[in-house]
Amino acid sequence: MRYQLFYWAEIQGRGEFVRLALEDAGADYEDVARKRGGTERMMAIMGGAREKRPPFAPPFLRAGKLTIAQVAEILFYLGPKLKLAPRDEAGRLWLHQLQLTVTDFIKEVHDTHHPVGTGLYYEDQKPEAKRYAQGFLEERAPKYLGYFERVLKKSGGPWLLGRKATYIDLSMFQLVEGMRYAFPKGMKRIERDIPGLVGVRGRVAARPGIKAYLASDRRIPFNESGIFRYYPELDR
Amino acid sequence: MRYQLFYWAEIQGRGEFVRLALEDAGADYEDVARKRGGTERMMAIMGGAREKRPPFAPPFLRAGKLTIAQVAEILFYLGPKLKLAPRDEAGRLWLHQLQLTVTDFIKEVHDTHHPVGTGLYYEDQKPEAKRYAQGFLEERAPKYLGYFERVLKKSGGPWLLGRKATYIDLSMFQLVEGMRYAFPKGMKRIERDIPGLVGVRGRVAARPGIKAYLASDRRIPFNESGIFRYYPELDR
Repeated sequence: MRYQLFYWAEIQGRGEFVRLALEDAGADYEDVARKRGGTERMMAIMGGAREKRPPFAPPFLRAGKLTIAQVAEILFYLGPKLKLAPRDEAGRLWLHQLQLTVTDFIKEVHDTHHPVGTGLYYEDQKPEAKRYAQGFLEERAPKYLGYFERVLKKSGGPWLLGRKATYIDLSMFQLVEGMRYAFPKGMKRIERDIPGLVGVRGRVAARPGIKAYLASDRRIPFNESGIFRYYPELDR
Repeated sequence: MRYQLFYWAEIQGRGEFVRLALEDAGADYEDVARKRGGTERMMAIMGGAREKRPPFAPPFLRAGKLTIAQVAEILFYLGPKLKLAPRDEAGRLWLHQLQLTVTDFIKEVHDTHHPVGTGLYYEDQKPEAKRYAQGFLEERAPKYLGYFERVLKKSGGPWLLGRKATYIDLSMFQLVEGMRYAFPKGMKRIERDIPGLVGVRGRVAARPGIKAYLASDRRIPFNESGIFRYYPELDR
């Protein structure tokens, strides 16, 4: 199956969680919006004039006749096909639940630089962002990451679901990378309490598909248009 | 199957989307935290000392040996069992995708009164809340609700997925009710553009299970501890 991924061409953003799964598995996919005319195609699908079931926002995936949106749902769908999910229902639901918690966390990461409004520039909400980021680094990020650390411990490791790697491990890699980029000082302190997740990050980075991806120009560098942004004034 | 729902006892909140589905279907369930000692049981499960797969936050559902968290995932699981979801994979995924968009919307509703920090009181973030709420009422709420209105139109109605009611229709009821409670003036203006959703609200309210539920004391009134809060200063 050749997949088509639709996501903003200039950022890692939410699409990156899907890209990592496709790349890890060596799946045959096209990153549509990064090709000529691709962004227009993406916008047309969202506009929905000819679409029976238009998605609300990117990323979304075309898989044959299906169009699937929402990162966690795309991964839920792809997981078994890419051999990045367990086969039993209980395991798949548990994995999906963890990924939905990543979704919640990522929204809070986004809000560190956009606490007052998605429609406003960061420059128009800097004092509010500073206040938000403080609570984020002191309470929210340690709470979320500490939760995933506990999940890892309970599984017996070396991966979050136990003996086999799944897409949630790829997402943990992305969370640690993103936090290091956006909040180098704050993350340094948080990492003391999540040695297990730091280990997962390292093992994911060494997987052949991921290693090749990170070395390629398909991996867009972090930047200040994405979810994880480096604004020194927001760091600890 | 007897279900056990775990959610905060004093509010509708996120748990209400699950309660509506269980009530509409006349399912056999226990709202655990609303009984003596129930909140302690809920906190113990989340604490995770004896739990192999502890949820991050309520609501969560016990169904036999399964513990399922995240509203959209609980509904994805319950949907076919309560006859509130289509049976085909494409339909189930589409329904789940819509519910995940409700999740995103609800987080933004929450942030109208808590834009700067979940750990702070509303009273400590009133100016920021006012600024957030303005953009919410002018852009975000019309965008989300307008999207669901479009989905309804495309389906041919009378329900969001077409001829059969599903759990997303119950969620539409809750969104319209909540918006009317929290932003009576702002919602009045928005409702001009979403006549279809207002119709869905009315048809849901008339369903026997929902009608009985709304008339019972199992339906907790809206209040200022929940997601939808009435603060006149945030309204249009």
